[in-house]
Amino acid sequence: MRTSTSFCGELLDLVRERNPLVQCITNDVSMNIAANVLLAAGASPAMVSAEEEAAEFAGIAAAVTINIGTLWAGAVPGMKGAAREAGTAAKPWVLDPVAHYATAFRRQVVSELLELKPTIIRGNASEVRALAGDVSQGQGVDSRDSSASARGSALTLARRHRCIVAVTGDTDFVTDGTRSAVIEGGSPLMPKVTALGCALTCLTGAFAAVAPGQPFEATIAALALFSVCGEDASHRAQGPGSFQPLFLDALAAIGPQRLDAEARISLQ
Amino acid sequence: MRTSTSFCGELLDLVRERNPLVQCITNDVSMNIAANVLLAAGASPAMVSAEEEAAEFAGIAAAVTINIGTLWAGAVPGMKGAAREAGTAAKPWVLDPVAHYATAFRRQVVSELLELKPTIIRGNASEVRALAGDVSQGQGVDSRDSSASARGSALTLARRHRCIVAVTGDTDFVTDGTRSAVIEGGSPLMPKVTALGCALTCLTGAFAAVAPGQPFEATIAALALFSVCGEDASHRAQGPGSFQPLFLDALAAIGPQRLDAEARISLQ
Amino acid sequence: MRTSTSFCGELLDLVRERNPLVQCITNDVSMNIAANVLLAAGASPAMVSAEEEAAEFAGIAAAVTINIGTLWAGAVPGMKGAAREAGTAAKPWVLDPVAHYATAFRRQVVSELLELKPTIIRGNASEVRALAGDVSQGQGVDSRDSSASARGSALTLARRHRCIVAVTGDTDFVTDGTRSAVIEGGSPLMPKVTALGCALTCLTGAFAAVAPGQPFEATIAALALFSVCGEDASHRAQGPGSFQPLFLDALAAIGPQRLDAEARISLQ
Repeated sequence: MRTSTSFCGELLDLVRERNPLVQCITNDVSMNIAANVLLAAGASPAMVSAEEEAAEFAGIAAAVTINIGTLWAGAVPGMKGAAREAGTAAKPWVLDPVAHYATAFRRQVVSELLELKPTIIRGNASEVRALAGDVSQGQGVDSRDSSASARGSALTLARRHRCIVAVTGDTDFVTDGTRSAVIEGGSPLMPKVTALGCALTCLTGAFAAVAPGQPFEATIAALALFSVCGEDASHRAQGPGSFQPLFLDALAAIGPQRLDAEARISLQ
Repeated sequence: MRTSTSFCGELLDLVRERNPLVQCITNDVSMNIAANVLLAAGASPAMVSAEEEAAEFAGIAAAVTINIGTLWAGAVPGMKGAAREAGTAAKPWVLDPVAHYATAFRRQVVSELLELKPTIIRGNASEVRALAGDVSQGQGVDSRDSSASARGSALTLARRHRCIVAVTGDTDFVTDGTRSAVIEGGSPLMPKVTALGCALTCLTGAFAAVAPGQPFEATIAALALFSVCGEDASHRAQGPGSFQPLFLDALAAIGPQRLDAEARISLQ
Repeated sequence: MRTSTSFCGELLDLVRERNPLVQCITNDVSMNIAANVLLAAGASPAMVSAEEEAAEFAGIAAAVTINIGTLWAGAVPGMKGAAREAGTAAKPWVLDPVAHYATAFRRQVVSELLELKPTIIRGNASEVRALAGDVSQGQGVDSRDSSASARGSALTLARRHRCIVAVTGDTDFVTDGTRSAVIEGGSPLMPKVTALGCALTCLTGAFAAVAPGQPFEATIAALALFSVCGEDASHRAQGPGSFQPLFLDALAAIGPQRLDAEARISLQ
């Protein structure tokens, strides 16, 4: 077990060096901000999701991310095809089960996607609690549970699906079912900017792409980068509107040393 | 009839207190900015539109908004299902008939949606004039008629469909067919930022969600909030690009007293 | 052959005077920024793409632009219908073959669109090289070839399809197969902001709309406007996040004289 968290800076360097091609099958709200987050951090986003090409494209992508935010039936074959291809090729894929509890359709699609064995699941506390089968206050896409309250659910989920689970919120929690990490930082402005969580899912894919066999560390590094840059941007922002450009600037400007120095990660 | 407009601040407080879940079936241009406008103002947006879940989700949403900006045939069943469910559950729903005059397809879909009895219709002057059957200069999505020229059309529409009609533009006009209000403010920069009108439609849904039985007041309050914050942001903006983050900051920062003090509303 | 490039300022004036209605069939990542770029520059964007109305809408639009960034099978009939209608009505239409080399589906759709004779093709170096049948390093949507390396490919393509070809990147290159122009300017921040190239495709449509019979000059003017405003914004930006609002402000603020004075165009 690693006791230092300097792998965060190392992985950030690798993202910038290798510029991994991340296939983002994401929702229509997050498309633009997710692509900008990946570009700012140093990765190469590609929003390729159609049934006709998603699986084929997963063959050239370095990682796949799948988000059900604006789900429709026509999107499901592309999601499954890309996830299956990622599995076959042993490439990481990340699942973001946005508001999966809200409708029968979402619950069904998420259960089918879970069978395709995501490498990483990232969600807010309401999503992770509900996915583990625990009581959740979630209604829409915003969490109505504290992130600390979802840690037990995250452990359950990680063990059940043999994957990494990340709960993001006021503090973040990452676990592989055995090891875990708490990441502090960020800003109360972040949930006031739509789709930042969705963008973080895509960024997690970028880090996982450059850290084969280390999805736990990759997830921590992506979350730490978000937290440090979010906190930094919030100090200069006047509100959720000015936060967004400042946050992208911070993602592009930060170096590995500063990331390692400012990340507040407790490995457990 | 109310002679004071302090209900605007009261409703803003209610939006922040209740954080209403607003189901926004909106176009692909406006998804991100509409969600950010709702979050900044204090509501909880959910962009849920697919046939498989839109009606079910309307069952948990506090209001529904429907915008035909990037209409396609596959979107229509979800729109109708959500509108129908809102009607059954006596929840407010808002129609934004973007450029409905432009094609036969749009005209047909809007006429079908009108049969489902929207609580509120919000459009620009060209859209409202054409919807009332009056001569309109509209071609694309931008208005080519002055908002003042659409007041008679708005009254006609409101009486015909027994709903609130809001015409937004250089000045705004709201009517329930009997009472009416003129709202001044805003900025010439606002039509230079895409999809702000669409975002306002969603925001109107948020206000209607917390004002059952008062869609006239809710619409005025949403428009007044937009006008005050738009004017405020325009004083500091250097152009349409810097306007957008400043506008979101203003929406998040404004308090009820300031809204009431600065809103320029003439009730008639 | 024109030796002065003062047509750039003249065409910018015409865009603002005529406010051309540009039908943008573009990808879901670029929708918002493309519309904002067109509004800032003075045009009127309309994102109308569905099979049910795209061809009909092309009948009222002044130009059509087609971008395959987030292609799916349901989008193809609308693309073809609009392109065909533009051809019949002798209106300009612009093709942006995003990452066409990445999958069989994209290659097939692009070959079908090429048969409908685009007036202008705009792409990055990897896209233009691959489209001409030359070796390309392209994988995802970001270019991995230098723009200078694609000049021969652009000439080949322009002659083969009797159209204008624009390669954009660190320097831009425009050719009609005989004449050519190199445009310098812009900023290394621009490829770090998603979908700016897609927005430029739409802007090229706006310029072509006001310059009938002069698509070569229209393309140069659109690219010169982007380069001058991009360079201007980059001087004040702190990174890719703050670049975007500054860039939109610059597009709205620039006058024709300044465009002509600052554009760095070599006609050849």
